Amino acid sequence: MNTLLLKELEQAAGKNYVFTSSIDRELYSYDATKERRVPEAVVRAVDAGQIARVLALCSRHGIPVTPRGAGTGLSGGSLPMCGGVVLDCSGMNKILELSPQHMVAVVQPGVVNGALQQEAARYGLFFPPDPASLDMSTLGGNVAENAGGPRAVKYGVMRDYVLGLKVVLADGRIMDTGGRTIKNVAGYDLTRLFVGSEGTLGVIVEATLRLFPIPEHKAAINGFFSSARAAALAVQRILTSGIRPAALEFLDNSTLKAVSRMGLHVPQGAQAFLLVDVDGPEEVTIRHLERIRSLMMDHEDRALQTHASASPEEYEEVWKIRRSVGPAVHSLGSGCIAEDIVVPLGSIAAMVERTAEIASTSGLYICCYGHSGDGNLHVNIVYDKERQDQAKHAWDTAAMIFDAAIALQGSISGEHGIGMIKLGFLARGIDPVALDVMQRIRRLLDPAGILNPCKALPEPEAGMIPGDAP
Amino acid sequence: MNTLLLKELEQAAGKNYVFTSSIDRELYSYDATKERRVPEAVVRAVDAGQIARVLALCSRHGIPVTPRGAGTGLSGGSLPMCGGVVLDCSGMNKILELSPQHMVAVVQPGVVNGALQQEAARYGLFFPPDPASLDMSTLGGNVAENAGGPRAVKYGVMRDYVLGLKVVLADGRIMDTGGRTIKNVAGYDLTRLFVGSEGTLGVIVEATLRLFPIPEHKAAINGFFSSARAAALAVQRILTSGIRPAALEFLDNSTLKAVSRMGLHVPQGAQAFLLVDVDGPEEVTIRHLERIRSLMMDHEDRALQTHASASPEEYEEVWKIRRSVGPAVHSLGSGCIAEDIVVPLGSIAAMVERTAEIASTSGLYICCYGHSGDGNLHVNIVYDKERQDQAKHAWDTAAMIFDAAIALQGSISGEHGIGMIKLGFLARGIDPVALDVMQRIRRLLDPAGILNPCKALPEPEAGMIPGDAP
Repeated sequence: MNTLLLKELEQAAGKNYVFTSSIDRELYSYDATKERRVPEAVVRAVDAGQIARVLALCSRHGIPVTPRGAGTGLSGGSLPMCGGVVLDCSGMNKILELSPQHMVAVVQPGVVNGALQQEAARYGLFFPPDPASLDMSTLGGNVAENAGGPRAVKYGVMRDYVLGLKVVLADGRIMDTGGRTIKNVAGYDLTRLFVGSEGTLGVIVEATLRLFPIPEHKAAINGFFSSARAAALAVQRILTSGIRPAALEFLDNSTLKAVSRMGLHVPQGAQAFLLVDVDGPEEVTIRHLERIRSLMMDHEDRALQTHASASPEEYEEVWKIRRSVGPAVHSLGSGCIAEDIVVPLGSIAAMVERTAEIASTSGLYICCYGHSGDGNLHVNIVYDKERQDQAKHAWDTAAMIFDAAIALQGSISGEHGIGMIKLGFLARGIDPVALDVMQRIRRLLDPAGILNPCKALPEPEAGMIPGDAP
Repeated sequence: MNTLLLKELEQAAGKNYVFTSSIDRELYSYDATKERRVPEAVVRAVDAGQIARVLALCSRHGIPVTPRGAGTGLSGGSLPMCGGVVLDCSGMNKILELSPQHMVAVVQPGVVNGALQQEAARYGLFFPPDPASLDMSTLGGNVAENAGGPRAVKYGVMRDYVLGLKVVLADGRIMDTGGRTIKNVAGYDLTRLFVGSEGTLGVIVEATLRLFPIPEHKAAINGFFSSARAAALAVQRILTSGIRPAALEFLDNSTLKAVSRMGLHVPQGAQAFLLVDVDGPEEVTIRHLERIRSLMMDHEDRALQTHASASPEEYEEVWKIRRSVGPAVHSLGSGCIAEDIVVPLGSIAAMVERTAEIASTSGLYICCYGHSGDGNLHVNIVYDKERQDQAKHAWDTAAMIFDAAIALQGSISGEHGIGMIKLGFLARGIDPVALDVMQRIRRLLDPAGILNPCKALPEPEAGMIPGDAP
């Protein structure tokens, strides 16, 4: 970035909020993907007006802007892949309002998800979306990625909780979408167009989020199975039983091995694991837990053993193996492709089996686990980052997993987003006409192409945009 | 429409599917708004390919196309306000798939909501969105309007149940959005951009809808109150109690009077009515009903009387007054402005009071009732259609109600849509930048302006579009 431009940037953002030393730029060069890209400058966001000035300037000069929350994303959404400016929104971290009457919270983008959870709990309320990163990740990032988590099976994902947004557009205009009502059909649903748009349509500077009363009680049961198929069939029995679990998590054999390496006990012969959480009135959680135990045990492919919670301490114990998966998988290798494919509910067993087949022919260590209750499976492909041939083989294997999900009418991402990690695979999973419409909407809102470029959607083919007719 | 154009239309749509006799055109000149506009031609839709040919033709010639389901809409969405062609989708009425494994249904746009309810019930499943018109209205129309209903307070609205769409765009391209998975973050959420877009962005030719297991049990309680304020305060106590009712309906004094004119008993001194529905496991519905009774009775502004259901027959009895509101209000006058404003949950009592004030100063008969559990109130302003001065006074009064909702941070429509009925009021309720972005998206997808023109969004000011900068 030349001196003149930098001066303009300092004028727009405020001199004290622009950082260009190599150490500052290094600090913003990575995220949870283990990929790395150094920005030309870092701007600490302080308010909507400042961001508006920065975006207007960057639009004029064609400078890429990558908004960033806590950098916990798994698809590279906050990496400055095309250089330019990283806009650090983590300092805009105020809960502006928490209203028990309206059951809404109004937050700045840098508020950490867990901080909102804690504040809401003081009023007997909770905010359902619970990505694994909730103690670190910011709500702005959660909105931009349409984050989910274990509770999504019952409570849905971010898009179900965002009532309204304040967004700075690429041209520097500030726009309010939606509002603070649960229903609202005045105009198009721009709010949900921005949820999950991965920072490519505007910078989120405020979100109005819906809160719910905390469930009266919660309980959990886990079970070990002798095969992935047996566990997957139990998942489908539970889903069609009429019970709506608050979480329904699956771990395959490779994931269990990784977990047992952390010192946790896994019984002999266990090839798969399920964790089922139920919440609601206590008398119902007790009855539902018993029914789920029966759905796990009273069938041909029965669980080897189950363990249900009877107290808050036991509840944590039942969850322990599931909670240790993240660190266990993270420590397996220098490289790891973290997929999060999703399939229709009736195809979970088929997807688990297909993943096991692909794993066995690939020779790579593949962990398959996650939110089986909504068909969203994390398939983690471990490889040695130093070996170029292994990296290529790992990505070829990832492509097979994507194709398997698509063949089952699934999608290549359930909650992590496309970012730059899955950019090359998006086109195989969505309709080309839909992709064209998405690209045109992106260009409409960001004609200079400054917002998180090289991400989320592949570049349109030359000559396609601008122009009206197909 | 000249003969040459008509010939082209017959070639595109199939000769047997184009109707131009005055009686055929009359049949498609009205909807539930009591407004009237005669189209130049009617096309009966049979499949996506035919619709694609018709839209491509109409785009070339700039002929307006108004998609229509059952014509039950309350905002004029299916009236051909700018002339042209009415595209009758009611004949595309097949349930293409109903999968208990995947818990989804794939439907054509003309399937009546109630027909899907019935079919789903055969598998122990249900489709939550329940507009009052469910026995007549089509799912295509429900999607286009983002329809709600009493169950929305617990289960949400159409947008929460649409997993994927097949849409014909104005240029004749056929586009698939979303899919059949619950989670999906591959690309922008075009599905929800189309939900609630009132037929202005494309014609919905197929929808993949999410189904849920039927709740184990349901029960209901109603109560009469001596003031609207007392009832509204009870609503807020119930909403903050931690119980999530499956319906929470309110009727004001004027609505009760209309109902009692139909021969239903309303106790002396009753000025307001609440109906609370709960569903779920039986032991919980019983306990929750008791708690709700206490929230109604054990307070200063207690209910005059309550009536809880102890059997399926009694359940229908408890609902009876609420179910009779539609016909009761409909019969009050020749003209009726059917508003459906929505306010934040904590502002329901304030909105009910403000409505009563406006009613008493206006001198008009105003019924206020509806889905108080999600803040969505139907304010029906009755007037004599033959008297020009009354019509104007009624609309001025409507404007005051809209402004009151907006002043409480609400919205001018919760579930009916803008259509042409509320077109003149939209701008006061949404951000001008958001309106500009909506208009640009509309123009992007429909450059010739053929899809349901004169509806949903006001025309952009001259010179605003096309063009990139604000």
